[in-house]
Amino acid sequence: MRTIYDSRLEKTRRAMAALRTDALVITHLPNVFYLCGFTGSSAALVVEPDSLQLFTDGRYTIQAREEAPGAALHIGRAPVAEQSGEYLRARVRKGRLAAAFEAGHVTVREWTRLREAGGSRVRWKQAEGLVEGLREVKEPGELDVMRQAAKLGSEVMTEVFELVRPGVRELDLAAEIDYRMRRKGASGPSFETIVGSGVRSALPHAQPSEKRLGKKELVVFDLGVILRHYCCDLTRTVCLGRAPAEVRRWYKAVEDAQRAALEALRAGATAGQVDRAARRVLERRSLGRYFVHSTGHGLGIEIHETPRLGRAQAQEIRVGNVVTLEPGVYVDGVGGIRIEDEVAVHASGTEVLTSAPRGLLEL
Amino acid sequence: MRTIYDSRLEKTRRAMAALRTDALVITHLPNVFYLCGFTGSSAALVVEPDSLQLFTDGRYTIQAREEAPGAALHIGRAPVAEQSGEYLRARVRKGRLAAAFEAGHVTVREWTRLREAGGSRVRWKQAEGLVEGLREVKEPGELDVMRQAAKLGSEVMTEVFELVRPGVRELDLAAEIDYRMRRKGASGPSFETIVGSGVRSALPHAQPSEKRLGKKELVVFDLGVILRHYCCDLTRTVCLGRAPAEVRRWYKAVEDAQRAALEALRAGATAGQVDRAARRVLERRSLGRYFVHSTGHGLGIEIHETPRLGRAQAQEIRVGNVVTLEPGVYVDGVGGIRIEDEVAVHASGTEVLTSAPRGLLEL
Repeated sequence: MRTIYDSRLEKTRRAMAALRTDALVITHLPNVFYLCGFTGSSAALVVEPDSLQLFTDGRYTIQAREEAPGAALHIGRAPVAEQSGEYLRARVRKGRLAAAFEAGHVTVREWTRLREAGGSRVRWKQAEGLVEGLREVKEPGELDVMRQAAKLGSEVMTEVFELVRPGVRELDLAAEIDYRMRRKGASGPSFETIVGSGVRSALPHAQPSEKRLGKKELVVFDLGVILRHYCCDLTRTVCLGRAPAEVRRWYKAVEDAQRAALEALRAGATAGQVDRAARRVLERRSLGRYFVHSTGHGLGIEIHETPRLGRAQAQEIRVGNVVTLEPGVYVDGVGGIRIEDEVAVHASGTEVLTSAPRGLLEL
Repeated sequence: MRTIYDSRLEKTRRAMAALRTDALVITHLPNVFYLCGFTGSSAALVVEPDSLQLFTDGRYTIQAREEAPGAALHIGRAPVAEQSGEYLRARVRKGRLAAAFEAGHVTVREWTRLREAGGSRVRWKQAEGLVEGLREVKEPGELDVMRQAAKLGSEVMTEVFELVRPGVRELDLAAEIDYRMRRKGASGPSFETIVGSGVRSALPHAQPSEKRLGKKELVVFDLGVILRHYCCDLTRTVCLGRAPAEVRRWYKAVEDAQRAALEALRAGATAGQVDRAARRVLERRSLGRYFVHSTGHGLGIEIHETPRLGRAQAQEIRVGNVVTLEPGVYVDGVGGIRIEDEVAVHASGTEVLTSAPRGLLEL
């Protein structure tokens, strides 16, 4: 029976042929999972035109057999880079063998091991983002899981609004968020849940602290969910009590920036165009300097994937991309606002996957 | 005022002098945190004999200033490897500059960036485990936090025993564990909490599933806590109802193996001796082939640190090490047992930091 892995491996092998490589060593774990289904914490996968080899250690014998029946399994004690290098050394028949490795993931130490174990007859090439390029275009089955993950994240966000009141600690809210996502079936958060209140809301990556929420403060919630190995990413900002006029103006600007990005997002546009659409709205309202990061990023098995929606990115948006749109305004010593949704790109238009209330909530 | 970072940097600079390097580029985030206190998700630290430079991006301007006042801060848009390479290029006065980088952490792609940005007058050396070597020996302040983290983890473990009964799903117990650690002040789990029941207890790294606990089953709980940036790691195995004679025999063997490792653990012993002490006990009871991993590992800011307690490890145990002792027996298709505690090595002997009940609980 044909599995999802067969068609992914077919595409991988086509890319290998274009790169003129006889073998591809995959060590980045999300890529290993994508190509064979194995989820252990240490693995190398060697893809050849006619075979697939999985290298791991004794902790994962049973699990690897269950998860990756399509791969020939090798259990060893040596680091996986060494195991796969030795395998390739034995594969050299006559002359030389061309092998590629993931230069964006393999460390210099692992690369030394791989090269030494492979011996002088393996000629190495650097593969850059080969599997990541495939992963950018989500399959229908992946989109289904991501819709469910986004729904789950949106439900948790909506529930947590009920718990917002002066005196509650940031870390209690973060604990509630993580607990509720688990109870709904998520395997956990896809990054450390962000709850930043008051002046701490101006930290784009605020770690939840013992600080208690105060009256009139802004609170930024940024949460990620992993459901069946796929991530969701969602941010909302609320105000405790009635927001001052300036905060409302900022909020409106961020909302409008996000809407502009959504309008710019379509197959054929460049990632930079989407970023600049959001940025321009904030710049026109003299808030450009408070927007200190890029407009969004792809996501899927990992929380940060390509395409990156940064101002200078020439990469084209494609049908099947799923990206975040998350403009923000951060004023040091005062507070911050970020609104983030997750959007899938179809041939016929965009689909916003996340659904928690988007307007300024004054709780 | 002298800070903890001053003495860590002093030791780092002594190691740099021994390596004959003018500058050290640190990109591994736990090492960045150890040397300057910064906790952002993207950073490079350049250590020179008379200065300390921190490179990050616009998301972290405010946070970096607060967390790492001892470092000169550089906010840039380029990848941190490129930023630090360019900084070093400008530091070359006359002749050449010797710089080291972390070969065990820097990817081949980052290394290319670093080298290209540094230019031809920077001579590169590979530093292997330089900061990790310092981190192996815990300071009194670090030990204090680790004691508290171990206490917190032990409390959570003891509480979760109360929730064990037939019909409960593995993932509900995992959610309870994570929630309770957060409510007690942990910033989160240090790895994905493991709950494996029945035949799934034979998977050393069982991801919590929708499976419900059944009567007479073994359940392995392996939980980690991060408290103020330091990890705890703790495993217990319980039985639902009265355990069969064979399970009791296995449990006793694992207990005895752990005790043998604890007796072997002292400053001056090698890591391999500690591993072999545990392994020998299991081998003598014909259970050696069911013990599929090493006996333990160091931990601290990271959940896996050196020293590794593997059978061939010649590294010496030192005063200040904190390691896990976690022998196990895993029988495919039947079930598994693991007992894991965390132990600090003092000049006067060992201190077991974790304290949840250790005998076979029949719940």
